[in-house]
Amino acid sequence: MRSRIPRVLCGTLPTSKSPVQLPEDEASHLHSVLRLRDGDPVVALDGKGHEVQARLQHRDKTAWVATDHDKPTRTHSLDDETTPLVLEVAILKGDAMSWVIEKAVEMGVRRLVPLVCDYGVVEIGKKGSQHFVERWQRIADQALKQCERLNRMKVDAPSPVLETLKYQAHQRWVAVEPRAGFEEAVPFRFLSEALKERDEIHVLVGPEGGWSPAECDAFRAESKHRALRPASLGPLVLRAETAALFVMGSALSSQILSRHGKLRP
Amino acid sequence: MRSRIPRVLCGTLPTSKSPVQLPEDEASHLHSVLRLRDGDPVVALDGKGHEVQARLQHRDKTAWVATDHDKPTRTHSLDDETTPLVLEVAILKGDAMSWVIEKAVEMGVRRLVPLVCDYGVVEIGKKGSQHFVERWQRIADQALKQCERLNRMKVDAPSPVLETLKYQAHQRWVAVEPRAGFEEAVPFRFLSEALKERDEIHVLVGPEGGWSPAECDAFRAESKHRALRPASLGPLVLRAETAALFVMGSALSSQILSRHGKLRP
Repeated sequence: MRSRIPRVLCGTLPTSKSPVQLPEDEASHLHSVLRLRDGDPVVALDGKGHEVQARLQHRDKTAWVATDHDKPTRTHSLDDETTPLVLEVAILKGDAMSWVIEKAVEMGVRRLVPLVCDYGVVEIGKKGSQHFVERWQRIADQALKQCERLNRMKVDAPSPVLETLKYQAHQRWVAVEPRAGFEEAVPFRFLSEALKERDEIHVLVGPEGGWSPAECDAFRAESKHRALRPASLGPLVLRAETAALFVMGSALSSQILSRHGKLRP
Repeated sequence: MRSRIPRVLCGTLPTSKSPVQLPEDEASHLHSVLRLRDGDPVVALDGKGHEVQARLQHRDKTAWVATDHDKPTRTHSLDDETTPLVLEVAILKGDAMSWVIEKAVEMGVRRLVPLVCDYGVVEIGKKGSQHFVERWQRIADQALKQCERLNRMKVDAPSPVLETLKYQAHQRWVAVEPRAGFEEAVPFRFLSEALKERDEIHVLVGPEGGWSPAECDAFRAESKHRALRPASLGPLVLRAETAALFVMGSALSSQILSRHGKLRP
């Protein structure tokens, strides 16, 4: 079985002249879970496309990463490493949401916007959206280290569907199910074709209960300006997280199809 | 929110002349969980591409489905409804395996073969493979009803990797990760192209710990006869279940790309 050098996420990369102090949660994970000691090798990431081989240093009760390198030992641009996909997905119940976030990072989704939907089942009221965003971003960053991706996937603050439509997007697509009654829904292949280009595309995926009549009306109004298009994901009724997984899997395969050769494994 | 007529899986469909008795677990689910009563509408499936609108009948302590129709009210051929993909996937830990099975049904995978791998983490010894197969098939059948698919996805008995290679397959591909050292791994697009055809393709996805040296040797030996090809799934290190989800998502999108128009939602 492979054993890998632990990866740590820092705000900026260390250089030979300036070690970087680790945030407390990262330090405590290395110490208590991974049992790393002073001098053990680590790989430091900045989440912006760079990593450098480094080592752990303990000073008093703080943990630092130090390196002999003055340049990153590996880099990947955002364009090379991610698909130009912004996934706008209904806030799903616990496990499903964690899975979607983790898989989105691994499959190269660029950004994730959690949507507050009329038929959503998760209430963010009590704990406040900050609590959720921090949790989701932690899941995303954990997946980042696991899959050796170098560019962080940002998880935005939750946004109501009608709010998110106000933000300009190059193209915005809404995944609709067979029974939602969108006569004008285009087959999925157009979405897949569109994803081969470099411009960011927003895809909206709704909750288990589907889009509400008010949300559908808003989509219809938007689609008249061609800023938004309903897309059909095939004949079966997909669960919300399956629709999200399908969208991101297809986006990744479109990317690999059109750019392979550039992205050597 | 949509409310749907409950779906029940029967060995054969009822006709106007012959109602069909439901298996005990199906009957008990309708009674105790869904609270259905005598005369309530249900949709009966045979898992072989047919469904018929029917109603529940209680006789003494047994449950039956009866119908006025003599022909199925909806049919879908296996070719129309599924992708010609046989997913051979390492037995993954609890939740991950359930997810992969559920998503495989929704994304139209035709058959699933659980693989016993050298670096697998699940021991089937104690409970026996029958216990697992029954559990997995139950998950698959539950997903079948949920997503309105009409053709069952069969879950095979677990098979060691080296055994499964003995079975003839039109094409067999092995998903390999960037670091597995398969110089000859072809980019994913060939797999995606191959999936546009009608012949069944077997894709092997390994466990979290990767393929063992012995398994890799067997793959190399097989690949000399071109019966098997290693395929690279891109530059990031995917978890086992993500690799499986990616393979099935891409297969479905290849199918929808090449056959849309035929499969109207």
